[in-house]
Amino acid sequence: MQWFPAAQWLRGYNRSLFTADFIAAIIVTIMLIPQSLAYAMLAGVPPEVGLYASVLPLVAYALFGTSRTLSVGPVAVVSLMTASAVSDAVAVTGADYHQAAILLALLSAAMLIGMGLLRFGFLANFLSHPVVSGFISASGIIIALSQLKHVLGISAHGETLIELGESLLAHVAQTNGYTLGVGVFALLFLAWCRTYLGVSLVRMGCSKDLASTLTKTAPVISIAATIALAYGFDLADRGVAIVGAVPSGLPSLGLPAFDWRLIEQLWPSALLISIIGYVESISVGRTLGAKRRQRVHSDQELIGLGSANLASALSSGFPVTGGFSRSVVNFDAGAQTPAASIMTALGIALAAMFLTPVLFYLPKATLAATIIVAVMSLVDLGLLKRAWSYSKSDGLALAGTIVITLLAGVEAGVVTGVALSIFLHLYHTSKPHVAIVGEVPGTQHFRNVNRHKVITAPTICSIRIDESLYFPNAAYLEDVVYAQVAKNPELKHVVLMCSAVNVIDLSALEALEMINERLTELGIGLHLSEVKGPVMDALERSHLLHALNGHVYLSQHEAFTQLQSGAGASRLGD
Amino acid sequence: MQWFPAAQWLRGYNRSLFTADFIAAIIVTIMLIPQSLAYAMLAGVPPEVGLYASVLPLVAYALFGTSRTLSVGPVAVVSLMTASAVSDAVAVTGADYHQAAILLALLSAAMLIGMGLLRFGFLANFLSHPVVSGFISASGIIIALSQLKHVLGISAHGETLIELGESLLAHVAQTNGYTLGVGVFALLFLAWCRTYLGVSLVRMGCSKDLASTLTKTAPVISIAATIALAYGFDLADRGVAIVGAVPSGLPSLGLPAFDWRLIEQLWPSALLISIIGYVESISVGRTLGAKRRQRVHSDQELIGLGSANLASALSSGFPVTGGFSRSVVNFDAGAQTPAASIMTALGIALAAMFLTPVLFYLPKATLAATIIVAVMSLVDLGLLKRAWSYSKSDGLALAGTIVITLLAGVEAGVVTGVALSIFLHLYHTSKPHVAIVGEVPGTQHFRNVNRHKVITAPTICSIRIDESLYFPNAAYLEDVVYAQVAKNPELKHVVLMCSAVNVIDLSALEALEMINERLTELGIGLHLSEVKGPVMDALERSHLLHALNGHVYLSQHEAFTQLQSGAGASRLGD
Repeated sequence: MQWFPAAQWLRGYNRSLFTADFIAAIIVTIMLIPQSLAYAMLAGVPPEVGLYASVLPLVAYALFGTSRTLSVGPVAVVSLMTASAVSDAVAVTGADYHQAAILLALLSAAMLIGMGLLRFGFLANFLSHPVVSGFISASGIIIALSQLKHVLGISAHGETLIELGESLLAHVAQTNGYTLGVGVFALLFLAWCRTYLGVSLVRMGCSKDLASTLTKTAPVISIAATIALAYGFDLADRGVAIVGAVPSGLPSLGLPAFDWRLIEQLWPSALLISIIGYVESISVGRTLGAKRRQRVHSDQELIGLGSANLASALSSGFPVTGGFSRSVVNFDAGAQTPAASIMTALGIALAAMFLTPVLFYLPKATLAATIIVAVMSLVDLGLLKRAWSYSKSDGLALAGTIVITLLAGVEAGVVTGVALSIFLHLYHTSKPHVAIVGEVPGTQHFRNVNRHKVITAPTICSIRIDESLYFPNAAYLEDVVYAQVAKNPELKHVVLMCSAVNVIDLSALEALEMINERLTELGIGLHLSEVKGPVMDALERSHLLHALNGHVYLSQHEAFTQLQSGAGASRLGD
Repeated sequence: MQWFPAAQWLRGYNRSLFTADFIAAIIVTIMLIPQSLAYAMLAGVPPEVGLYASVLPLVAYALFGTSRTLSVGPVAVVSLMTASAVSDAVAVTGADYHQAAILLALLSAAMLIGMGLLRFGFLANFLSHPVVSGFISASGIIIALSQLKHVLGISAHGETLIELGESLLAHVAQTNGYTLGVGVFALLFLAWCRTYLGVSLVRMGCSKDLASTLTKTAPVISIAATIALAYGFDLADRGVAIVGAVPSGLPSLGLPAFDWRLIEQLWPSALLISIIGYVESISVGRTLGAKRRQRVHSDQELIGLGSANLASALSSGFPVTGGFSRSVVNFDAGAQTPAASIMTALGIALAAMFLTPVLFYLPKATLAATIIVAVMSLVDLGLLKRAWSYSKSDGLALAGTIVITLLAGVEAGVVTGVALSIFLHLYHTSKPHVAIVGEVPGTQHFRNVNRHKVITAPTICSIRIDESLYFPNAAYLEDVVYAQVAKNPELKHVVLMCSAVNVIDLSALEALEMINERLTELGIGLHLSEVKGPVMDALERSHLLHALNGHVYLSQHEAFTQLQSGAGASRLGD
C-alpha cells in the first residue's frame, strides 16, 4: 500500500500532460453536469447535491486512488441503492432524507477506509462476474422503470419490478401530455445521438475522436433545448415538473449529526453500497489500467474510494464511486493523470457557483431521459445465453441474481447472487469429478481410462480425485473408494493420485484414516501419489502417514511401475 | 432410495437373529428408561413424554431407516436445542410448552422427509468435522451446566455459559443439602461405574462383554437406590425435588394444533435441529455400519429420521434422532437387525404402562447426574490442540464454534461454525498456492522449483496453479502471471499447468482472455497443459481456444519439450 499514491504522477508532471488533462477535463465537465443532476434526482436528494458530490470527491480520489483515469462521482447503481436504503431508513426513524444520505456516504467512507487498512480488498473477488453483471443489468431495468414516472409526469413509487409496474399502471391515466412530449423528445434525441450521431459525423468528415467527443455533449444539448422549450412555452404552468430554484454556490464543509438509530438502520446498506461501489469501480479501473499497462492496487483503491466518500460526506454529498461511462469518456478524451479529475472538479465547482440559475426551467423529464438512456446501455441480457452455454452454474448464478434483483430489490439481489454462486461452487466440490487413470503409452503421463487409450493393471486401481479433499466431499471420497473396491475383486492396491488435491482438511484426513483402516482389513494397500508440497507438509503433522499401510510416491508413474513390479517404494512428496 | 428398506432384513429373519436382537433389546431398554426420563427433563417436557418418544419413533426408524443397529430416541444435544427453541417461541407466542415441543417434532419430520425426497442428504456434508465436534463439546458443557441446578436444588436458567454461570452464582446460597447429597452420590457412583466398574468386574472373573453390559445398568441402579433413599428418608419433605406423579399408559395418537404464529417462530430452529440431528445420527450410523460392512444411505436416512420424528409428534413426543451412546450399547449388546429396536420399543411401552408409579420418588438430582455424566464424555477439548496443529483453518473453525456456542447459544454456534469453515475455505482458494515448476531429471514429472532440483528454461515459465480457477481467484491469477512476466525479461512462453484446475468458471475465463490479450501484445505465448476432460469440454464451448495465441498440450512434459525445440504442437486435452 502507498500512503500518497499521487506522489508518483505529481513528480513527472509537465506541460504536455497538463494540456492533455485540461482538454479531457473540459469534456468530462460538460458530460458530468447533467449526469450529476440526474443521479441526484435518482438518489432522491436536491439537484445541487449531485454537483457537490462531483467536486471534492474527485480531488480526494485523485490524491489517494491508484487509477490514473478513473472518474469518481455519483453513478447510477449506487444512486439507486442510496435511494432504496435512505428511504427505508427514513421511514423507520423519521430522520431528514438529505442528512441520512450524507450519513450513508460517511458510513460508506468509514467502511471502505477500514477495509483498505485491513487489506480486505480480496472480498470484492467474491462477487463473480455473472453476479456483478446480472446485478447491474437488473438494476438498470429497475432504474429505467423508476424514472418512467418523470417522463409520464405522474407519481409512482416502488423498489421492485412488480411494485413499480403496479404503481405506474395505477397512475398512467394521469399522464401529462406536455411532460410526455418533453420526455419522449429527450429520449429519442439521446437514443439517436448514442446510436447514429457518431456515424453521421464521421460520414460528414469529422475525425473519429471528435465525433465521439461531440456525441457525449448530447445530454447537455438536450438539457439546453428543453430548458428553452420549458421557458418559451411556459411548460411549468402546463403541469411539466421542472427542477426549480437551485441554490448557487458551494456547500459549507461539515460532518452530519451522529444519529445512532439512523446508523443502526443504514449500516448494512452502507456495507453493500461500499462493496458494490468498490467492485464496479475497480473493474473499470482495471480494464482501463490494462489498456495502458498501469496497475490498480486493490487495497489502496479502497482507501481512495473511502476518501472520496469522506469528501462527499464533508461537502453534503451522497455515496460516490468510480463510474464506467464517465471514466471511459475521461480515458477516451485523453486524460493522462488524475490532474484531469482535479480540473474537472474545478469545472463542476464553477457550474455550481454560476450555472444554477439557468437550471430553474430544466424539466425533470429531461433528467429522467438522460438516466434511462444511460442505464439501458448497462443492460446486457444476452450474457444470460452466453453464460448458460458455457457453464450451467454461471448461468444459474446470473439468472438468480437478475430475477431476485428485479423481484425483491437491489440488496436482496446482490446478497442472493453471492450466496448462490458460493453455494453452487461448494455443491460441485461436494461431488467432485473422479477419474480412474492409466498410463498413456510411451509417456509417463496418466489420463482418464474413459477418454484415452491407456495402460492399466487389474491389481492396481489409480483414482484421480479432481478436487481438494475437504469437508463437503469427505464422505463422498469414502463412497468412491469403496465402490472401486467392490467392483474389482482382484484389487491389491488403491493409489490416490493427488495432483488436483490442493488441501486435505481434518474432515478428509479422518475419512482417509477410515479408508486406510478398512482397506487394511481387506488386505488392500492404500497409496498416495503426486502429493503436493503444502499438502505433504500438513500430512507430516498428522497420524495418517504412520498408519498408512502403503506408500507415498513422488509421481503416479513411479507408483504404477513399482506396485506392478512388487518393489519397495520411496516415501517422498513435493 | 428404497421405499421400504425393512424388506431387506425382514426377508432373511430367523430364530438366531431373533435371540441376538432380543438380548440386545433387554439391555437397551434398561439403559433407555433413565435416559428417556432425563432427556425429557432436559428438553423441559414432562418425564413420561421421554418414554413416549422412545416407543413409536424406534418402530418407525426400524421400518424406514437404513442402519441395522442405530438406536433412535431422545438425545442430549437435540433435547437441549429443543429446550432453547421451545422456550424462546413460547415466550413470544404464549403457546403451551409441550404442544410447542410436539409441533417442533412435526416440523422437523416434515423437513427431514422433504430433504430426503429432494435428495438433500449432501447438505450434511457442509458441517465439517471440527464444527460438529466443537458444537457437541460446547453443547455438552452447556448441558452439564444447565443440569447443575438440579444437583444443587436451586433454580437457575440461561442458554449460554455466562447466563448460566451468573444465574447459578446468584442462587448458589440457597443450595439444599439433601439434594446436593443425592446428586453428588449419583454423580460419583455413575462416574465410578463408567471408569472403574468394568475393570473391577473383569478382574473378578466376569467376561468382558458381561462386564461392559453390567456397567450400562449403572443409571438404573442409581435410580433404584435414590428412589429408595427418597422414599425411606422422606427426602421430598426435606426439599428434595422429586419427579412426582407420572401418568401411566400410552399416549393417544394425534397431531398437534397448527398454530401458524408458533410455526413461524419454530421453523428456523426446526431446520437446525433437523440438520444437526441428521449429522449426529448419520455419523453414528456410518461408524457402526463400517464395522460390519453395512452401508447407510444418506437420502433414505433422512426419510427414516423424518418418519421417526413424525411418529414422535403423533405420540405427543419431542424431536428425536439417532444417539451415539444408545446405538453403541445396542451394537455392543449384539443387535443384528432393527427388530432389536422394535423389541426395545415394546419394552419401553411396558415401562410406560406399569413402571411409572415407582418413579414417583425419583429425585430430579439423579436424572441430572445421569445427564451430566453422559454429556461430559462428549466433551473433547483435546481436539482443539490436535486440530490446530494439523491446520490453522480447522483449528479456527473448531475454536470459533466452541466459543460462539458457549457465549451465544447452540443455534448461533452451529451457524457461525458452518459460515466460518466455508469462509476460511473460500479465503484460501482466493489466494491459492502457486508453484513455478521444472522437470525432475530422468522423469517426465514436473515439480516446484523451490522444493526439487529440476530442469527449467529461461524462455519458458511453467506455472502450476494449485486451485480451480473461479471467481474468488480470477483477479489473483492475472496478478500471478503478470508478476512472472515482469520478473523474466527473456520470457517467450508462459505455460499454465492445469493438473490442479478442476473447473474454470466464467470469471476466470474472462481473466484468461485478458491475460491472453496482454501476453499477445507483449509477444509472449500463452499455453495450457494437462487440462482435464471436463474443463476442456467447457473451454471448447468458449471463445478462449480460438483466441489463444499458444497451444493446449496433453502433458507438461510435451509442452516443455516442444516449446524448447520450437516445434509445433498438438491441440489435445483429456
